Amino acid sequence: MLIKSADVRKAKNNKPFIAFTFQDKSGQIDGKFWDAKEEDINRFQAGTVVFVSGKRELYQNNPQLRISKMRLAQAGEPSSPELYMERAPIRTEDMIEEINQTLFEITSAPINRVVRYLLKKFHKEFFDFPAAKRHHHAFPGGLSFHTISILRLAKTVVKNYPGVSQSLLYGGVILHDIGKTIELTGSLSTEYTLKGNLIGHIVLIDEEITKACEALKISEDNEDIILLKHVVLAHHGKMEYGSPVLPHLLEAEIIHYLDNLDASINMIDTALQRTTEGSFSERIFGLENRSFYKPNVTPPAQTE
Amino acid sequence: MLIKSADVRKAKNNKPFIAFTFQDKSGQIDGKFWDAKEEDINRFQAGTVVFVSGKRELYQNNPQLRISKMRLAQAGEPSSPELYMERAPIRTEDMIEEINQTLFEITSAPINRVVRYLLKKFHKEFFDFPAAKRHHHAFPGGLSFHTISILRLAKTVVKNYPGVSQSLLYGGVILHDIGKTIELTGSLSTEYTLKGNLIGHIVLIDEEITKACEALKISEDNEDIILLKHVVLAHHGKMEYGSPVLPHLLEAEIIHYLDNLDASINMIDTALQRTTEGSFSERIFGLENRSFYKPNVTPPAQTE
Amino acid sequence: MLIKSADVRKAKNNKPFIAFTFQDKSGQIDGKFWDAKEEDINRFQAGTVVFVSGKRELYQNNPQLRISKMRLAQAGEPSSPELYMERAPIRTEDMIEEINQTLFEITSAPINRVVRYLLKKFHKEFFDFPAAKRHHHAFPGGLSFHTISILRLAKTVVKNYPGVSQSLLYGGVILHDIGKTIELTGSLSTEYTLKGNLIGHIVLIDEEITKACEALKISEDNEDIILLKHVVLAHHGKMEYGSPVLPHLLEAEIIHYLDNLDASINMIDTALQRTTEGSFSERIFGLENRSFYKPNVTPPAQTE
Amino acid sequence: MLIKSADVRKAKNNKPFIAFTFQDKSGQIDGKFWDAKEEDINRFQAGTVVFVSGKRELYQNNPQLRISKMRLAQAGEPSSPELYMERAPIRTEDMIEEINQTLFEITSAPINRVVRYLLKKFHKEFFDFPAAKRHHHAFPGGLSFHTISILRLAKTVVKNYPGVSQSLLYGGVILHDIGKTIELTGSLSTEYTLKGNLIGHIVLIDEEITKACEALKISEDNEDIILLKHVVLAHHGKMEYGSPVLPHLLEAEIIHYLDNLDASINMIDTALQRTTEGSFSERIFGLENRSFYKPNVTPPAQTE
Amino acid sequence: MLIKSADVRKAKNNKPFIAFTFQDKSGQIDGKFWDAKEEDINRFQAGTVVFVSGKRELYQNNPQLRISKMRLAQAGEPSSPELYMERAPIRTEDMIEEINQTLFEITSAPINRVVRYLLKKFHKEFFDFPAAKRHHHAFPGGLSFHTISILRLAKTVVKNYPGVSQSLLYGGVILHDIGKTIELTGSLSTEYTLKGNLIGHIVLIDEEITKACEALKISEDNEDIILLKHVVLAHHGKMEYGSPVLPHLLEAEIIHYLDNLDASINMIDTALQRTTEGSFSERIFGLENRSFYKPNVTPPAQTE
Amino acid sequence: MLIKSADVRKAKNNKPFIAFTFQDKSGQIDGKFWDAKEEDINRFQAGTVVFVSGKRELYQNNPQLRISKMRLAQAGEPSSPELYMERAPIRTEDMIEEINQTLFEITSAPINRVVRYLLKKFHKEFFDFPAAKRHHHAFPGGLSFHTISILRLAKTVVKNYPGVSQSLLYGGVILHDIGKTIELTGSLSTEYTLKGNLIGHIVLIDEEITKACEALKISEDNEDIILLKHVVLAHHGKMEYGSPVLPHLLEAEIIHYLDNLDASINMIDTALQRTTEGSFSERIFGLENRSFYKPNVTPPAQTE
Repeated sequence: MLIKSADVRKAKNNKPFIAFTFQDKSGQIDGKFWDAKEEDINRFQAGTVVFVSGKRELYQNNPQLRISKMRLAQAGEPSSPELYMERAPIRTEDMIEEINQTLFEITSAPINRVVRYLLKKFHKEFFDFPAAKRHHHAFPGGLSFHTISILRLAKTVVKNYPGVSQSLLYGGVILHDIGKTIELTGSLSTEYTLKGNLIGHIVLIDEEITKACEALKISEDNEDIILLKHVVLAHHGKMEYGSPVLPHLLEAEIIHYLDNLDASINMIDTALQRTTEGSFSERIFGLENRSFYKPNVTPPAQTE
Repeated sequence: MLIKSADVRKAKNNKPFIAFTFQDKSGQIDGKFWDAKEEDINRFQAGTVVFVSGKRELYQNNPQLRISKMRLAQAGEPSSPELYMERAPIRTEDMIEEINQTLFEITSAPINRVVRYLLKKFHKEFFDFPAAKRHHHAFPGGLSFHTISILRLAKTVVKNYPGVSQSLLYGGVILHDIGKTIELTGSLSTEYTLKGNLIGHIVLIDEEITKACEALKISEDNEDIILLKHVVLAHHGKMEYGSPVLPHLLEAEIIHYLDNLDASINMIDTALQRTTEGSFSERIFGLENRSFYKPNVTPPAQTE
Repeated sequence: MLIKSADVRKAKNNKPFIAFTFQDKSGQIDGKFWDAKEEDINRFQAGTVVFVSGKRELYQNNPQLRISKMRLAQAGEPSSPELYMERAPIRTEDMIEEINQTLFEITSAPINRVVRYLLKKFHKEFFDFPAAKRHHHAFPGGLSFHTISILRLAKTVVKNYPGVSQSLLYGGVILHDIGKTIELTGSLSTEYTLKGNLIGHIVLIDEEITKACEALKISEDNEDIILLKHVVLAHHGKMEYGSPVLPHLLEAEIIHYLDNLDASINMIDTALQRTTEGSFSERIFGLENRSFYKPNVTPPAQTE
Repeated sequence: MLIKSADVRKAKNNKPFIAFTFQDKSGQIDGKFWDAKEEDINRFQAGTVVFVSGKRELYQNNPQLRISKMRLAQAGEPSSPELYMERAPIRTEDMIEEINQTLFEITSAPINRVVRYLLKKFHKEFFDFPAAKRHHHAFPGGLSFHTISILRLAKTVVKNYPGVSQSLLYGGVILHDIGKTIELTGSLSTEYTLKGNLIGHIVLIDEEITKACEALKISEDNEDIILLKHVVLAHHGKMEYGSPVLPHLLEAEIIHYLDNLDASINMIDTALQRTTEGSFSERIFGLENRSFYKPNVTPPAQTE
Repeated sequence: MLIKSADVRKAKNNKPFIAFTFQDKSGQIDGKFWDAKEEDINRFQAGTVVFVSGKRELYQNNPQLRISKMRLAQAGEPSSPELYMERAPIRTEDMIEEINQTLFEITSAPINRVVRYLLKKFHKEFFDFPAAKRHHHAFPGGLSFHTISILRLAKTVVKNYPGVSQSLLYGGVILHDIGKTIELTGSLSTEYTLKGNLIGHIVLIDEEITKACEALKISEDNEDIILLKHVVLAHHGKMEYGSPVLPHLLEAEIIHYLDNLDASINMIDTALQRTTEGSFSERIFGLENRSFYKPNVTPPAQTE
Repeated sequence: MLIKSADVRKAKNNKPFIAFTFQDKSGQIDGKFWDAKEEDINRFQAGTVVFVSGKRELYQNNPQLRISKMRLAQAGEPSSPELYMERAPIRTEDMIEEINQTLFEITSAPINRVVRYLLKKFHKEFFDFPAAKRHHHAFPGGLSFHTISILRLAKTVVKNYPGVSQSLLYGGVILHDIGKTIELTGSLSTEYTLKGNLIGHIVLIDEEITKACEALKISEDNEDIILLKHVVLAHHGKMEYGSPVLPHLLEAEIIHYLDNLDASINMIDTALQRTTEGSFSERIFGLENRSFYKPNVTPPAQTE
């Protein structure tokens, strides 16, 4: 397993212990390492691959690992962190391909050029960063995976509702969270940058569109650019969630809903994976602390 | 045009006038008929087809008809209200067919049986009622059209997110607003019934599921039935919007978002139809009084 | 004393301890049992009667029992849990009698028949269940005691305000919380059922009225039945507290106030019983975390 | 009828008209007097008794008088305003007697003395003022009638809940709104005074208790006095409704509920008096703009 | 007087009238021109200087001009709109000088350069635009006057509180509202631009800082620039007021308070100018609809 | 160092420990004393001067003292608590002088006399009490220091905005928080008094003004007195913050803003003193749990 975070604390008996979060592809689990010695603290740091044996227990309804033994990966054993990290369920190449295909459907020239410019500028980060520090899609590649999930819903919307501009909708979806590549520090031990804290990803992407227009010599008064900026600025849907303007375009309203829908499904899905059938999940902070019920699997077409 | 509503009021000069809302397939428009005589009031009532000439004006930014002449349909002229009413853009037969196809994908027997039972019981109303008195899909057939629009989005969701139960999702979508057939009086001059005012469509459909189970001899403790009821009860998403419980099922959360998304698109779409390119619509009451911008049409792939 | 709950946790020194809540007729008190062995955990489970000696201490302003010795009841000693439980201060027979007397004042036939039918159906639970899992009247018989306390206030209201319908008011009071018998699991170790979590006691009782009407062949369009349902559905007073409709009947508004008043008095009363004169109680979660002052007893007619 | 208020306005045709509210013992009704001449304006002022003939009409669902003829009371006709005013349904002497009886149950000497002192000081106003400018009990004597209605409920509470201090509860009820005699100008054409607008009746009565203690040489540190002040200051129950402190005494919480209950019943009752059976009342501003349903009278013990 | 706005409406008798707002240096007043003919509508348009005689009246507590005669300025009479417009009480030259002096106290080089660059870019608009469309400082030069008023308060703050950065505080104050020069259309008949509606002045100024840094070759990672952007972005203090980030810098918090304080004083001051001593002003929309009392002038050192 | 508070608690291993807050002039720090014996608990009580050696550590981002040795002050060592307490950065004599000078600018006789009377009555407490139990200016002399800081800002306001009454503004500032001398117990181990909890400092000072008028024979109907009371009652600005009336005077609005501004600066300043450059402070409870960034010191006039 990979040590995702390692937090040294003091027990009430005054001895240090380490509060771990372990990660493998099946998910995460917490575990406490009691009576930690100086050497343990140095050895077992975040980002290290370790082999742990112990028992899975419930602590205040949350699963926890009761550690009995723990050691570093030895020579010959797999020790690369990447092997243990949760990843997007689509391969990066496929995500790149899917995004590229979508670009052909963005027929507004200024929007198309700005989107291509920024995808190129942030290419590496876009396919590597998580979509959030903790709440949803918090794994490497989460940002692009979240974006693609919304794009797929957006395409159904375009098909079903005639008046929608696909340039604006797809352009807005692709850019809506790309400011997170500046807001956050990266895909491991993700933290907020100073710009992230003081400016925020919503305004950061607006700045990037502004600079892209300067570089591409697109007028800042071009209506399509103003609309694109609006769609990105308004995508949190409410001012109290950090959008400096409320949605005043059909496409802004749609992106707001699809963004929330995809994030919610991911949060619920993640919580339900750790829940037993027939019981309720932990409370999900990002969903007003609601817990969700995981139904008992019903064989299809049962009869009473 | 069809007189959708006719409200007799008193002018400040103490003479009666009639405040009309006219309807034809292109939309609605208001108009005032000044110095109305007794016979005008009797002749020009809601539900009547009339021929009006006059000028379209703006009154406090809302279009209004300045009536210069107005008369009843004469013999030989079309006078059936149905001809002038906005209708769902899909034919009723096609909607019936689409719903029926969907029923095959509801593989949970209790959900399938309850949904069929209630669709049969409310068949006529379901394909005739509006989805709301005023806010969205406020036209004959609006209820089934709204339902089908959500179903289409729901099918994309099922395709993209593996964990979702299609029985619960499709069953919930089909039933979520069917209580409106009891809450409202019908497709013309729609008002709230006493049950609509005092019980509300959310609880009314829950009662119908309860009675359907009694009739079909399905146990009220069947988990699928409890889940179906929950999905319907929680579909307003927040208690302050009238759901007695918050969503605690993945499918309940999804229906809540898709319902809001479809209703919002319809409200914005309706408002933009009455708006000139390059300007803002009227404020939309159901969307926190926001007005929406109707962009200038940009020829595709323009260059700056 | 009775062990009301026994929660095995891990101390920071990694040894298990048991967090008890003890109950006798004078109230409840918490206590921790340190360094619990396997046999202690098995022996001292919730629902067991034990003999404990120790010292009452304050821990963060809450009284707590510092356990020095603890053993099971021996042969010859009282060991029935019922002996130690807090109970309603009125005997069950007297509550039954008082409810029955009230039925004669419900002169609307449909309301009278539905109330009798449901009282009979839930007779055992109604006089045994608590009124809530934790907040107020959380003891066996609490539900009927809470109901009777409100009924007594309701009778003063009927006497003082001429326009009030006593059928609707008394019928509504008796049924308003009876759905808790389905929402909760019982009077000991009370938890929420799946129906309680996903449907809620407000809709559950509405379903019961619906089924009662079917059984009694009372039309669901009978106005008195619609009013009775409304009064029950609206009794939480605000949508954000779980009522799917706001009160639109005088009697609904009155029940809402009396319900809150009785629950508040019970919560404050319970908190003040554990508070010293001249100081403030713990914060009461159900009353916006307010604490209440317990005045010094003033001898009557004192002079300064 | 009595002219309760007469508001001269300008019609859209630029001629003055008078917007009247008429009052007789059966209630109030509005009416507009068109094309008012100088002499009409002078003659028909608020506080005058007039004889009006006309027709009762509905204007936007509110009843209104369409005035056809209107004249002053002539010699020999009753012309005293008192004859036409709505009054409390209890005679002033009986209210005085009921308050006086209650004083004997206030056994705390400092509370008893302060209450007697202030009742004496504001005797005339207390039995003459309305309880509010407009919302509830807005008629002469409304203040004392509102007080007595609450007192009656309070006595049931004392009987049913053993821990309640009747000195504090009854003292608090009697004083809770007596500051309105300073906040408002009187029982006719009631307006807010400068003190009412800038200090408010809640603090004004606190000041009066302070001065009463000085006059009666009761220490301001006497606990009963502090409690009495608290009960009065906290009676609006929430800070956003103007109480500078939240209720922290059982009796403060009770008065808050009973005050709201009595005011709500009076508002609903007043609205229902103007409503036809089987329909909904106007929206009541003081009750979050809800309208209330007036049921069809059901003959007792009907059978379906 | 200057016609500030002229709104043609239809009276209830169906004839057009003009709703004027007149402006001279002493303030504004509304007035209605009844039975307006085609030529009146053409002649009396916004931005025209007119001579009006009539009577000042109160209409629903707001002063209004009852127009008896009205004509255009004749040859030889003053007819330039500028003569009649309210203006900032400081001369433009003095404001320029005061701003320039302040620049010397901005010792951070990047902040100083950006502020100078933007002041130069928007020089004309900054000293000509109002500070808002309607709420506060809604007159030519209002933007710079509002800025200078805050700067004066800011200098006291710097003097009294040692830890405050004057570079950040003064730079932030000068730029905080300069985006209004893009958000609004100008100083006469002020409206929102498309960018104003869809992006808003807070993000617009952030974009300008971004472009200024590109032009001046200042790194966008320079901490002072990040801080300056934050201070501007956060100056509305709360997200629901349109700031995409909450204040996380001492200087951001201070600017937020001083901005609100100056705007409030200006709104109250403007309202009190139209209010008689000893009475309450109109309700001020920008201050939660509160009205403000204008005290009677008390001769200094009076004695009671 | 001074022991500011000493809280005996039980560790999870069941042994008592002491949770200290130490104070010297440089600020405060927490520290835990493990395995405390009876004599340690008696010796090391709040208000005692001790000599401590140990190591400064971070515990969940908050600095904490890891105590290695601790003893009482010995003979010859400084042991007076006053020596170690944080104090206002202005000497008491200077504060007295500054307040006295201000009194000459209060030219309204009734306001001047009331302010002098109350300053005299509460002289000792006013210059000794903190301005709050914990949030801001929580040190001896904090109340008068907070008052003087606001006064200085108020004087700039008077200079910049002509319409402001300095009598009302300065009088209001001086009295606005003086009720805290009754609300709180003193400058050490500050707690709320019963009056503080049940009446609150806002109403307490209103009572004091009332009694001062009685003593000085100033009529309670004097307009200046009503205005002064209003300014004090409304200074929390919003009802939900405990003001029983909203500001309806220009001066009330100004005091509200200046009070908040000064308190906020003090809270941020205090938090930043404990924060390293280039990082964020702890969350500040009184400022909606925001944390504030402490910038890296930039040498003036740097160049990139």
